[in-house]
Amino acid sequence: MDEYGHLASFATRWNDNDVYGHVNNAVYYEAMDTTINTWLIEHGGLDLLDGPSIGVCKASSCEYTASGSYPDVLVVGLRAGRLGSTSLTWETGIFRERDGELLATGRFVHVFVDRAHRRPVPIPAALRAAVEARLVA
Amino acid sequence: MDEYGHLASFATRWNDNDVYGHVNNAVYYEAMDTTINTWLIEHGGLDLLDGPSIGVCKASSCEYTASGSYPDVLVVGLRAGRLGSTSLTWETGIFRERDGELLATGRFVHVFVDRAHRRPVPIPAALRAAVEARLVA
Amino acid sequence: MDEYGHLASFATRWNDNDVYGHVNNAVYYEAMDTTINTWLIEHGGLDLLDGPSIGVCKASSCEYTASGSYPDVLVVGLRAGRLGSTSLTWETGIFRERDGELLATGRFVHVFVDRAHRRPVPIPAALRAAVEARLVA
Amino acid sequence: MDEYGHLASFATRWNDNDVYGHVNNAVYYEAMDTTINTWLIEHGGLDLLDGPSIGVCKASSCEYTASGSYPDVLVVGLRAGRLGSTSLTWETGIFRERDGELLATGRFVHVFVDRAHRRPVPIPAALRAAVEARLVA
Repeated sequence: MDEYGHLASFATRWNDNDVYGHVNNAVYYEAMDTTINTWLIEHGGLDLLDGPSIGVCKASSCEYTASGSYPDVLVVGLRAGRLGSTSLTWETGIFRERDGELLATGRFVHVFVDRAHRRPVPIPAALRAAVEARLVA
Repeated sequence: MDEYGHLASFATRWNDNDVYGHVNNAVYYEAMDTTINTWLIEHGGLDLLDGPSIGVCKASSCEYTASGSYPDVLVVGLRAGRLGSTSLTWETGIFRERDGELLATGRFVHVFVDRAHRRPVPIPAALRAAVEARLVA
Repeated sequence: MDEYGHLASFATRWNDNDVYGHVNNAVYYEAMDTTINTWLIEHGGLDLLDGPSIGVCKASSCEYTASGSYPDVLVVGLRAGRLGSTSLTWETGIFRERDGELLATGRFVHVFVDRAHRRPVPIPAALRAAVEARLVA
Repeated sequence: MDEYGHLASFATRWNDNDVYGHVNNAVYYEAMDTTINTWLIEHGGLDLLDGPSIGVCKASSCEYTASGSYPDVLVVGLRAGRLGSTSLTWETGIFRERDGELLATGRFVHVFVDRAHRRPVPIPAALRAAVEARLVA
């Protein structure tokens, strides 16, 4: 997990497990999205309800290497990949807390847009600074 | 929260919020179900994948007194209500961790059935003893 | 299903099934909420994003009589119960489309509030008229 | 949509919308997963509960080109991409039913494993034949 600048806990839920007894693949995207948004609120100055710009998911992907199962707690490692003028690629590693096994590796691309018209805008300066200070390797 | 014999943390997710900026009402049932099943695994001897009997939801209800919002962490208080021969009524209070405000009060009725035929069976003795020792007021 | 003034289809999803191979109990609340909101948009003049008043869930309950499983399609029957000055109780029956079996009976109480301050407001007149014309037995 | 050999309807739910009024990005993976599994059940001979082999998600990705919103109905186009000995890459296009606009393009890789030990097994012959007959361009 050392390769990630930020680690966050993500608890699984009873209904995350599918009929095969595994956390459903789509839940890993919820884990990434939640970890990223929580970081944006706590460190990047994001105001979900009233801020002028919002991050919209432009692309995402995930490779699964092992299965998680409720009641596992997951740990989501987060770092910044490509930091463009209006977009930011987040890189994540999702681990099982109990034994540290890597379950999935994901990528999540945010484009920042203005709230009203949903057109791309530059990444806010405070957010850019926070990402560079904390999440760039 | 003192009136509940067991308290568990339940983290909200980005996608739990609906367009009004509130945790969707159905998520409170996920919170109850998850808290109950985790307790059953940790204290009640429930084996989700291989145990002979399983708990099936027969009825549930919830009254909402205030709104939660991601990124709030919720606290779910749990106690046993009516403990019948084949069914168990769980009583819950769901609070906002930050300030302890009560958000919702819920009820969740489990009927225990055998895994193969899904017919009611007596509540397992070990589970009954655990409930009586820990969750009955 | 004749006792309901409105019937709507609700398709289940792969990830609705839990480890026991059943649609999770919380999904029935999603089915009620979705059916009610779609009706409100189509017949009750609800504008989710910009309307002055919104419906907030005050209470809900469900009794389960049989299990549904993905890939079942469900049919949600909807009618109005108590129609107060600021609140409306919806009554629902949830059936399996394939054979018409009743799976669950639910109740969902909406309180109407103004969008800005979230204080109770009278049910909009157009909505009240639509409910009385179409959903009251 | 002509480039896809199979088209399936996918209804959105009230709680699929996030605070920005859009169907949450993770829901598109639920749409893909559900469409693929329904096809597997109807055309590929998949028995979810008792069949000897199951399809496990090895990787997935999605690129978002426009936003969907409840109450939109989505249409998921499905075709087979790479058909290996033990794995199958599904290619999907997700459209808004109302106007046919492309919202997202996704990829979903299934590895087939035996149910008991979760080790890769050859794609069942009947499934391979069905894919080749119906879903290969």
